[in-house]
Amino acid sequence: MAKKILLLPGDGIGPEVTAVSRRLIDFLATEGIVELQVDEAPFGGAAYDLHGAPITAATIETALQSDAVLMGAVGGPQWSGLAYDLRPEAGLLKLREAMDVYANLRPAFCFNALAGLSSLKTELIAGLDILFVRELVGGVYFGQPRGIETLPNGEKRGLNTHSYTSSEIRRVARVAFDIARTRGNRVCSVEKGNVMEAGLLWREVVTELHAEEYADVELSHMLADNCAMQLVRAPQQFDVILTDNLFGDILSDIASMLTGSIGMLPSAAIGKPGAPGLYEPIHGSAPDIAGKGIANPCASVLSLAMAMRYSLERPDIAIAIEQAVGAILTDGQLTADLGGSASTQDIADTLLEAL
Amino acid sequence: MAKKILLLPGDGIGPEVTAVSRRLIDFLATEGIVELQVDEAPFGGAAYDLHGAPITAATIETALQSDAVLMGAVGGPQWSGLAYDLRPEAGLLKLREAMDVYANLRPAFCFNALAGLSSLKTELIAGLDILFVRELVGGVYFGQPRGIETLPNGEKRGLNTHSYTSSEIRRVARVAFDIARTRGNRVCSVEKGNVMEAGLLWREVVTELHAEEYADVELSHMLADNCAMQLVRAPQQFDVILTDNLFGDILSDIASMLTGSIGMLPSAAIGKPGAPGLYEPIHGSAPDIAGKGIANPCASVLSLAMAMRYSLERPDIAIAIEQAVGAILTDGQLTADLGGSASTQDIADTLLEAL
Ligand SMILES: CC(C)[C@H](C(=O)O)[C@@H](O)C(=O)O
Ligand SMILES: CC(C)[C@H](C(=O)O)[C@@H](O)C(=O)O
Repeated sequence: MAKKILLLPGDGIGPEVTAVSRRLIDFLATEGIVELQVDEAPFGGAAYDLHGAPITAATIETALQSDAVLMGAVGGPQWSGLAYDLRPEAGLLKLREAMDVYANLRPAFCFNALAGLSSLKTELIAGLDILFVRELVGGVYFGQPRGIETLPNGEKRGLNTHSYTSSEIRRVARVAFDIARTRGNRVCSVEKGNVMEAGLLWREVVTELHAEEYADVELSHMLADNCAMQLVRAPQQFDVILTDNLFGDILSDIASMLTGSIGMLPSAAIGKPGAPGLYEPIHGSAPDIAGKGIANPCASVLSLAMAMRYSLERPDIAIAIEQAVGAILTDGQLTADLGGSASTQDIADTLLEAL
Repeated sequence: MAKKILLLPGDGIGPEVTAVSRRLIDFLATEGIVELQVDEAPFGGAAYDLHGAPITAATIETALQSDAVLMGAVGGPQWSGLAYDLRPEAGLLKLREAMDVYANLRPAFCFNALAGLSSLKTELIAGLDILFVRELVGGVYFGQPRGIETLPNGEKRGLNTHSYTSSEIRRVARVAFDIARTRGNRVCSVEKGNVMEAGLLWREVVTELHAEEYADVELSHMLADNCAMQLVRAPQQFDVILTDNLFGDILSDIASMLTGSIGMLPSAAIGKPGAPGLYEPIHGSAPDIAGKGIANPCASVLSLAMAMRYSLERPDIAIAIEQAVGAILTDGQLTADLGGSASTQDIADTLLEAL
């Protein structure tokens, strides 16, 4: 049976880069290389403009019926004044929660051809290859109670709850250990257990699971502030970094920025074995360059590759796509974010040829 | 009347570096340059070993009666197994709370002589001069409820509460705006209001105070994950960064690491006008080099300088100390952390001569 993929182009440059992934999919289908049923739906600000909500129940339903969801990007200044639940970001959080994609895989690796773009001295990033496993559907992003309340004295109070249960920690830690075994076999678990009990429990549960089932993997623990420093000082020390939703957001962004090519980096969010995965570029909607035809489509295309690997059972195509992207870089065909002058279409054309 | 300073040497290299600040104070007193009453008390792990608690009620009382408190560093592996409230870090949190030092000033500047030590390319850090104003006695560090509970199904749940009231945000924002006026006149306020209502309120209150009283200061807002990236990409864009306790912990650590000389950086924590301030190096207790006489005392000495400026009404001495430290660097007398071979005593001797 054909696998199903749902495209959610979203806002800003999202539609432009997702269109390139779609061209790739259509090409692979036409050539008979894959059998894929493709759906598409508005998402984020685009969905709000059409339906008054950043994601509709129908879109969530379609996502849950798919094998993979490929997102572009969400958000933009025109929606920033909306009520909290109507903002484009709220749609993304709702989708992550509904799909229960608890493990966000965020690779930060350095394309050799692009090493010069990093802010870091070249010797500090040569061979950099970190994989973040970020918990994605818990922590302070989702904890209850939350909100802004008015106190008896008339003051306001903003409140969010950071919470994790042992099983929430355990299931994402399992993903980190399993993936570590396929790479450098090292996991660094990151929390702030010196000031937060939730971090203390995090460390405890990870340590326990490690002892029970993953003693062959090298496990270390690091405080979040120290990890942020180590990422700047000596990022090559890391293999897999396992952390919570909020720290993962910040730390993985540091790491991707180190590579100098954040426009190149994909991500995957996966849930229970067999459940659909959610794939998206690390970069945002970049409203400033939207509509100009100069957005870098590589992160979207590499996200599609991750979908081929983790959800669509076509690791062979994942590799082919990754190699095609690598070849583009070696040939020096670069978009503006990488200091070149190639257009989104130029890259798309070359990618198709290479495949 | 003589001003009072309380020294809390603490653990690891804390006593070694604080001893250098004490030599400086004693020298200034003997020469009749300052009149200072000096007290000293064990703190952190050292206090736990003596008294069974990381800080005693008597020490807190002395701190509250002082004009300034100069801390060394706390913590070390030997105390890591202690109950949560007995750990050295708990002593520090208790002291911050008792002193109500809500504004943590963390400068990240680059000593020209040390620019080569940064991980960043030199052109990215030339002239770097950021001042973090980090809220220090609220947020997820202190919010209630907190703890680890056992759920009905036998699972554990770790819980911390991130909470800020308008007045807590307002008072620390005021410090940031006031200091910005004495520097580059720009404040960047950082939160994660796109996923946390507490961040939304933060932005609202800062915006309001700005409009009411500080419209002459340039105010911008940034999400915490973006700020982490911008610190790596283009740190020179920042003047004053205002943020909460947890983000401030992580982001200021990134910034200090960028300078390449974290062993050089001081910090101040101040509360209500007239209340005592708490001063401490940014660096930790560095158990691996403790007792070897090679720790860099500059951060402690520069923290003393901040105390002279903000709590002891002697900005002239602050400047003299800062110049003496600058001269040491220019002369190339460096400790091991900066790639040199000078001992803690060498630096102390030179500093005293320079003064
Ligand atoms: C858009 C925002 C809600 C999101 C997050 O904070 O998770 C983004 O920063 C990310 O990392 O995917
Ligand atoms: C030691 C620890 C409790 C502390 C903190 O997290 O505030 C430290 O990291 C700091 O930044 O001063």
